[in-house]
Amino acid sequence: MNDQNNAVSAIHWTEAGLSLLDQRRLPDEETYLQFNDAAAVAAAIREMVVRGAPAIGITAAYAVVLAARRHVMVSPREWQAGVLQDIQLLAAARPTAVNLVWALARMRRCLAAAGSNPVAALLDEARRIHAEDIAANQRMGEAGAALIDKGSAVLTHCNAGALATGGYGTALGVIRSAWAAGKLRHVYAGETRPWLQGARLTAWELLRDDIPVTLLSDSAASLLMQQDHVQWVIVGADRVAANGDVVNKIGTYQLAVACRYHGVRMMVVAPLSTLDRGMPNGQQVTLEERSPDEVLQLAGRRIAAPGATAWNPVFDVTPAGLVDYLVTEAGVVALPDSEKLAALPVSQSDPQ
Amino acid sequence: MNDQNNAVSAIHWTEAGLSLLDQRRLPDEETYLQFNDAAAVAAAIREMVVRGAPAIGITAAYAVVLAARRHVMVSPREWQAGVLQDIQLLAAARPTAVNLVWALARMRRCLAAAGSNPVAALLDEARRIHAEDIAANQRMGEAGAALIDKGSAVLTHCNAGALATGGYGTALGVIRSAWAAGKLRHVYAGETRPWLQGARLTAWELLRDDIPVTLLSDSAASLLMQQDHVQWVIVGADRVAANGDVVNKIGTYQLAVACRYHGVRMMVVAPLSTLDRGMPNGQQVTLEERSPDEVLQLAGRRIAAPGATAWNPVFDVTPAGLVDYLVTEAGVVALPDSEKLAALPVSQSDPQ
Repeated sequence: MNDQNNAVSAIHWTEAGLSLLDQRRLPDEETYLQFNDAAAVAAAIREMVVRGAPAIGITAAYAVVLAARRHVMVSPREWQAGVLQDIQLLAAARPTAVNLVWALARMRRCLAAAGSNPVAALLDEARRIHAEDIAANQRMGEAGAALIDKGSAVLTHCNAGALATGGYGTALGVIRSAWAAGKLRHVYAGETRPWLQGARLTAWELLRDDIPVTLLSDSAASLLMQQDHVQWVIVGADRVAANGDVVNKIGTYQLAVACRYHGVRMMVVAPLSTLDRGMPNGQQVTLEERSPDEVLQLAGRRIAAPGATAWNPVFDVTPAGLVDYLVTEAGVVALPDSEKLAALPVSQSDPQ
Repeated sequence: MNDQNNAVSAIHWTEAGLSLLDQRRLPDEETYLQFNDAAAVAAAIREMVVRGAPAIGITAAYAVVLAARRHVMVSPREWQAGVLQDIQLLAAARPTAVNLVWALARMRRCLAAAGSNPVAALLDEARRIHAEDIAANQRMGEAGAALIDKGSAVLTHCNAGALATGGYGTALGVIRSAWAAGKLRHVYAGETRPWLQGARLTAWELLRDDIPVTLLSDSAASLLMQQDHVQWVIVGADRVAANGDVVNKIGTYQLAVACRYHGVRMMVVAPLSTLDRGMPNGQQVTLEERSPDEVLQLAGRRIAAPGATAWNPVFDVTPAGLVDYLVTEAGVVALPDSEKLAALPVSQSDPQ
């Protein structure tokens, strides 16, 4: 792992417990919150202290360590039921990203194999999940960057960066690698309403690595393409169905439609932990809808006319047919479909 | 004119001068600003106290009355040069909407024909421009509504309502008429970043008329279409080129691309004053770019990471080929092209 390329890390394990960078407060404040029990971590996931599919999975894995530590101490004989309850609580924190379920399945297997004092084994497993994610991101970064011609400009959406993962990032991992290789003429980022992950997080993270970034309103992306300012759209994913359909941040699908219309290439960067082999297609994935207030308000201030309501789906489904490349740590899949995805190596990444 | 359907008016002429509803402060405050000289009105147009192509034209027309009143008083012999200077200042206030140029051309013709005391004649002309716009909107409202099947849901973008016009609105005029006719199942409005005309103005205006409206992030429009929630996108225009290309609020083009992909119909509602017969196509129209701060900030508070820059084009070009219907006060043009637009009646609306 190249620390030069990984200036920020949102998830830290220390002896004191789990420490999470509060992403709700970025870029104004860089505040880490400390957690010692799994229920509080579940709430933090729900409230988006931490967000991004891989980061949620890693966070939940560490939360299982917290759960074990607490329950073993409180009831040395019947701690297992308590841990399993906490795992259920964590799994329900957010519905769309599959990495959460995947990481918890790994932790549950580890738990089943562990003896009467599981904390050390669980911590090892959580650390492995974390380290494997960073390594996968580094590999995907190189593989994705290899697809990009020198002198290209790219647009990304939401934050699929170090903040959204164990480190380095998925889409931003590719952008970091391509930037380091001198291939990128320009990086654009959609601001990503309503939560402004692009404006608040992606811009913050790229600027820390001295990668200049130009923000734009999400609705300006098609004009950017019409004026031939961008050759790639590069995004992460919260879940990839078995047929290659991509569930990702609201607005991804609209970008994919615009890409197809303009002949701009669409790259989705997602580790195998994001692949849900049990989900035949994206239309069957539960798309989380969050509070209308995220649209009606900004930073606690109401921006919409009183009385107005809002529809706030925070993910959408991009059909596989609109994806040019799916980049995984096991290789690049061009024009993904069921057959090509089934041929990807089955790793312990797969949810059971 | 049906006052029932026109609850709000943003432009008022009184003996004291011109009164404009300050649209920057909506929906929080309903404040009218008073103007007595044309330079201040030009600044108000630039700073978006008043916005919307037809409203800008009407406002500029009244500003010429203010200019004449002042210059006739100050220099009873050489007032004409002063008025023409003010007209130039007004014409330069914003570059994209053609209605501004069009209204000023009408006022200049009126000025040329007026005697040594032109104020009354100019005021009559400005009032005619204002009244004609409202009447045109009423006609377009009926004509556009006639295209819509009962039980339809529609999505609009930005604010092409009473606030953006002399009254009643273009796109919102159609929505008002269709709602009154019991045809609409639901009205959606994109929030319209960066200036939030949808959230702040369209929602405010529709709710005053008791038309329920659901806001959404601009990037959620394609998901709305994918889920078959909407049958029409209905928008106004800032300029329609001779070939039918439509220049309108940033995001319109992205919606048009999404409409085509999903088979949703795209209706552009624009009076003849918005038709620029001298402009062969939309690619040649100057697309205003405003301060990056509109993207980087919200309500005076910085939302983006420090150091990030932004690209803030506030209009885009929708090729005529993506427009299903252009609704004008002279009739509905299906699949607009140069030939059909050339066949529209030449009215005094045309800029010289």
